[in-house]
Amino acid sequence: MQAGETTQVEDMLATEEPLEIRLIYGTKAQPVKKNLAVTMRTPGNDEELATGFLYTEGIISHIDDIASCEELRENVIQITLNEQVKPNLNHQDRNFYTTSSCGVCGKASIDAIRTECNIYDKSVPFEVTPETVYQLPQTLRENQSMFRDTGGIHAAALFDTSGKLLMVREDVGRHNAMDKLVGAVLKSGLIPLNNHLLLLSGRASFELVQKATMAGVKLVASVGAPSSLAVETADEFGITLIGFLKQDRMNIYTGAERIKN
Amino acid sequence: MQAGETTQVEDMLATEEPLEIRLIYGTKAQPVKKNLAVTMRTPGNDEELATGFLYTEGIISHIDDIASCEELRENVIQITLNEQVKPNLNHQDRNFYTTSSCGVCGKASIDAIRTECNIYDKSVPFEVTPETVYQLPQTLRENQSMFRDTGGIHAAALFDTSGKLLMVREDVGRHNAMDKLVGAVLKSGLIPLNNHLLLLSGRASFELVQKATMAGVKLVASVGAPSSLAVETADEFGITLIGFLKQDRMNIYTGAERIKN
Repeated sequence: MQAGETTQVEDMLATEEPLEIRLIYGTKAQPVKKNLAVTMRTPGNDEELATGFLYTEGIISHIDDIASCEELRENVIQITLNEQVKPNLNHQDRNFYTTSSCGVCGKASIDAIRTECNIYDKSVPFEVTPETVYQLPQTLRENQSMFRDTGGIHAAALFDTSGKLLMVREDVGRHNAMDKLVGAVLKSGLIPLNNHLLLLSGRASFELVQKATMAGVKLVASVGAPSSLAVETADEFGITLIGFLKQDRMNIYTGAERIKN
Repeated sequence: MQAGETTQVEDMLATEEPLEIRLIYGTKAQPVKKNLAVTMRTPGNDEELATGFLYTEGIISHIDDIASCEELRENVIQITLNEQVKPNLNHQDRNFYTTSSCGVCGKASIDAIRTECNIYDKSVPFEVTPETVYQLPQTLRENQSMFRDTGGIHAAALFDTSGKLLMVREDVGRHNAMDKLVGAVLKSGLIPLNNHLLLLSGRASFELVQKATMAGVKLVASVGAPSSLAVETADEFGITLIGFLKQDRMNIYTGAERIKN
């Protein structure tokens, strides 16, 4: 086709629909119901998304906290906790009622992760070669089917330290792709992800590094740029953070000691 | 530099910090205080961001609803409404307490915009040439300074129908870039943006098309892909939606009648 020509074609679009996540806790006699969030997501893997969301937001700390997860109706998913489990809803309230005496700042955001994350261990000593890291985007591209079709999907992908792809999840929202991945991993018993590499198809924001921290990830590589607070957070929790990852170059922002020839 | 070589360099990062948006309404004798949101944003233009957020979320419907806007301390901004103004907080609650009888779905999300937006007019009959649209990304690139420096910033840019750049705002969060732009436009009295072109540096999600609709925008062009719900929303409100915009080609999803040679 020449520039300037017009043709009518069918185009595949990345599907975006709201998902409401509901929580039930307390006792059977006196259940407490809470509507946690509505997220705009790509339908599919909704149970993983809801489970991962509860975990990466620090609302639950074990997959065993969950008694059941059911789709009430289209786009509404309800998670019921076991009777003895008390959800940590501080973070949910924090978004709307910040009362930290030190005020609202990046430092306070990082401190909140430390309070809520009970699995982090700063000194996890694995190593990977630069070549292993360089090949991650290509491996992801070969397996990211929705992106190929629509061009509008973010991916979060989990690799072992040899660069073998273990799992990939896709979504219009990159936080959702990450939550789906963590939800799937929780079920498989792999958490903490201390010996794994995480690849993000877009940029590395604070939110994504926060979720990675909650899952115990020690190496986060992103195809795009990281933000200042993402780098500070990675530094604080001993995470290797890589940005602008291409076939033969990358920027290593923190934890460069894990990348060795 | 050769592939495989390692160098230590300073890298500029896109700054990301939380901003808490607070609202005060009611009377001076009995003020009601509400902590609306904490958003992770790039510092700068915070008053525009807060004002734009209130407007695009439908909480206020005129810039004159605002009595004052002050930075209480770093990263905390407080907007006080005039005494007679009652904010519409339905949308805020909707995120957490969805009660729509038809359930949670894309259709309900679109219906909510219709309820809250009082300025849309489906049949705004302006026309632009394809050449005008093709040149928008280049014009934006020449004026998007933070992206050049960091590679990690989203932009929302406003043009007139001749392709002249009127305003650009940048942020790590694309919804924030859009809110900053709308906040700035509100002050200048340009709304509704019936005769303007909006360019988004990334993908066109439902949220961005929603915010564009609230501001009366009739042509949204994005460098990336649109989502299914973004296309449905644009169609519903008579917005021309363009995706994958490049120097000599684009995909027109809705409202193609406004693009004429």
